[in-house]
Amino acid sequence: MVELALHLDPVADTPLYEQLYGALAGQIRTGRLAEGTRLPGKRSLAASLGLAVNTVDTAYQMLVAEGYLESRERSGFRVLAWDGPLPAAPAPLPEPPAAPQTAWRFDLSTSGVDTGLFPFRTWGRIQKELLYSSPQLLDHGPRQGDEELRRQAADYLRAYRGVQCGLDQVVIGAGIEYLVGLLARLLGGAAAVENPGYRRTVKILENNGVECIPVDIDKGGLPPRALEASGARVACITPSHQFPTGVTMPAPRRAQLLKWAMAAPDRWIIEDDYDSEFRFDIRPLPSLQGMAGEDGPVIYLTTFSKSLAPSIRMAAMVLPRPLLGRWQAMYGSYSSTVSRFEQETLGRFIRDGHFTRHLARLRSQYKQRMETLAEALEAAFPGRVELQGRHTGLHLLLTLKDGPGETAMVDRARAAGVRLEGLRGYYLARPEHCPENTVVVGYAALPPGDIPALAEALRTAWQKT
Amino acid sequence: MVELALHLDPVADTPLYEQLYGALAGQIRTGRLAEGTRLPGKRSLAASLGLAVNTVDTAYQMLVAEGYLESRERSGFRVLAWDGPLPAAPAPLPEPPAAPQTAWRFDLSTSGVDTGLFPFRTWGRIQKELLYSSPQLLDHGPRQGDEELRRQAADYLRAYRGVQCGLDQVVIGAGIEYLVGLLARLLGGAAAVENPGYRRTVKILENNGVECIPVDIDKGGLPPRALEASGARVACITPSHQFPTGVTMPAPRRAQLLKWAMAAPDRWIIEDDYDSEFRFDIRPLPSLQGMAGEDGPVIYLTTFSKSLAPSIRMAAMVLPRPLLGRWQAMYGSYSSTVSRFEQETLGRFIRDGHFTRHLARLRSQYKQRMETLAEALEAAFPGRVELQGRHTGLHLLLTLKDGPGETAMVDRARAAGVRLEGLRGYYLARPEHCPENTVVVGYAALPPGDIPALAEALRTAWQKT
Repeated sequence: MVELALHLDPVADTPLYEQLYGALAGQIRTGRLAEGTRLPGKRSLAASLGLAVNTVDTAYQMLVAEGYLESRERSGFRVLAWDGPLPAAPAPLPEPPAAPQTAWRFDLSTSGVDTGLFPFRTWGRIQKELLYSSPQLLDHGPRQGDEELRRQAADYLRAYRGVQCGLDQVVIGAGIEYLVGLLARLLGGAAAVENPGYRRTVKILENNGVECIPVDIDKGGLPPRALEASGARVACITPSHQFPTGVTMPAPRRAQLLKWAMAAPDRWIIEDDYDSEFRFDIRPLPSLQGMAGEDGPVIYLTTFSKSLAPSIRMAAMVLPRPLLGRWQAMYGSYSSTVSRFEQETLGRFIRDGHFTRHLARLRSQYKQRMETLAEALEAAFPGRVELQGRHTGLHLLLTLKDGPGETAMVDRARAAGVRLEGLRGYYLARPEHCPENTVVVGYAALPPGDIPALAEALRTAWQKT
Repeated sequence: MVELALHLDPVADTPLYEQLYGALAGQIRTGRLAEGTRLPGKRSLAASLGLAVNTVDTAYQMLVAEGYLESRERSGFRVLAWDGPLPAAPAPLPEPPAAPQTAWRFDLSTSGVDTGLFPFRTWGRIQKELLYSSPQLLDHGPRQGDEELRRQAADYLRAYRGVQCGLDQVVIGAGIEYLVGLLARLLGGAAAVENPGYRRTVKILENNGVECIPVDIDKGGLPPRALEASGARVACITPSHQFPTGVTMPAPRRAQLLKWAMAAPDRWIIEDDYDSEFRFDIRPLPSLQGMAGEDGPVIYLTTFSKSLAPSIRMAAMVLPRPLLGRWQAMYGSYSSTVSRFEQETLGRFIRDGHFTRHLARLRSQYKQRMETLAEALEAAFPGRVELQGRHTGLHLLLTLKDGPGETAMVDRARAAGVRLEGLRGYYLARPEHCPENTVVVGYAALPPGDIPALAEALRTAWQKT
């Protein structure tokens, strides 16, 4: 009969049976209690430790359940074979400190939106109605996304973006990034990406084994000849509003890209239509997908994160019919990545006309903000500032003639509490082609009231020294 | 001056300027209107078509904006270079008909849960509070998941699953499938998977370029020798409740697997702890991750889809500290895939003690259901039925001694409106090792009141002929 050295703490949070279990399991794992060792009977151990017999019994049962002990008629509990102690784990690494958050006075990043414009009341009402009226939404939904949302998204995209598609072509996913990751595996091949362009798309494609070839854009966007020369089989583009330069691709250029795609089998264009809801003149350009048709070579992507809120992770993709079979074969068994309640909330939000009203409101607010900002900047730098990309989207390119250079502009702005990026950072290759003195100015998260102070802060930061 | 053949429909939903724009763009794309062609002046065209001048002007402006036309002082609007018509798109493929939904009388699939047990009132209240009280949740959140949810999940997993981790190791994602996809790219290598096992995990790993090697399990789960022999560098296992056999891996076997992982560099174990909340005897086994420690070779995965609802797409992963750097490098720029409102709702649901109470309720309900079902089945097939996997999880293995064979059992059950799967379908390799007359019986989605009728339906379906 073995003598057990056990230290239990009757006032600890961990129940005594857990403590006893842990102590015994530990001694078995470390080999202190060897195979075949017979443990004291429940009663005697309980007595010696001043525990209830039940406590000891529970601990013993747990050890039996987990294969530490065997229980034999009459002969009590024996330690089972344990082939040698575990190698000691390395000393725990310390938990790294959280990165310090800079508090910016003005946020000109391109990722933010004005969350104050979110339709809290309507959204909350629909959400509440659904939770109580539609328990079936707790169950598994269609893998490509809930039908109501796909129908509403398809109708919206047909009407406002000229997208041509049937319900079966629409896929809802938790953000464009997620969908691009799936597309990368689906299409394979090397992908041409716009230079300058969106670094994260490149990261996702590369993470998924797709080689990315940066192709320099011109004033019409991605040039077909350069695309052809790149040898890529897939082209990722932002034709409505090139990111970050704001170039809109003219129709003839669009046709040339479609020809490129149709000129060889298995060539595809990924159209990232990330912010075309925000067109401030006549109306948004119809999508390239619409020009290609539902059987054409274009995969259309859009997100609701900019029109609703960044934290609402919903994006929609329209797959060309010829790709549906391949998609089903590869991803047909994947569950949807978006909560059905949120899908249905958005579906009804669009269906009942709230979405188009909401967009109209956003457009007028953002347009006004853009114009106020442009005026303030032109006033702060008379004749020295040039602004590109005013017609669409939620950011501008600001070029300061005879400015102190991009790096100095960015550093000085940041020192003054202005969060912004230089254009050079968006060059995936050949940064020497980057125009001088140019920064990217996102205004979606900038409160209108802050604009005068911002302009003054930049004027001071960038004045000639 | 060209003669335009245009057919506009004044009563169509599409506004006239859109129709005019579309007609002209179409004629330019097809080459019917050649480069350099001069279009009629706005007034004359308006007059000849009986339109307002404004309507024509808007259409012309759109065509200019999109690069179809150029506008010259005095000389009006000319068609721009369009290099040849687009190749005609193939005739649209028909939209495939939706697959017919079988209406089952009884659902014994393993994917369902009893959504009637969902805590509607509490969940809805927290959700509502958050929407109005926490607008900051609309903005981008931490990429690994919101801090409150990660803290609560970590505390819960430490207390109830013996998981050892800090906040920085927890990643929230839109379902285990999504996280497994990221892990596949992160870890690479060939992966040993349990045979029989969960086909979808295999599909995801293979979709992400990971070769899967099915390893036959024994009564203790994945055998270390076979794992070693497989040459795999990663092992995907379900130690708490092997899917679908229900085997619980004994502690000595767990230690052997950890030794396998520690015996060579870059070996990893993915512990899929998908349903261990549902342990009906003493208490759930502590996780393998807990035995390995926070710097050990185990990646821990769990989901809230079974404890809350399948449509709520939230899963948690615990990364070993040694992998955090690699994770950051690869996925540090990815946005979270889960809505922050839902993350925060769950975070508070756990924090305020609702989750553990909810789990206790689920456990007692499901345990009762399992016992009622087991009794009903044993009564329906006196001495002929054998049930495995009663202690954990939400499904049983049912073996019918001298039954008509698995295929016949499944077919006859389905003919009687019972949705269930045979065990053979879970064999990824060597189906000949599959025990005869065995089916997988999930009872989570089975209303208790249906149990007698279900047992009777199976008795009739499976009676000797």
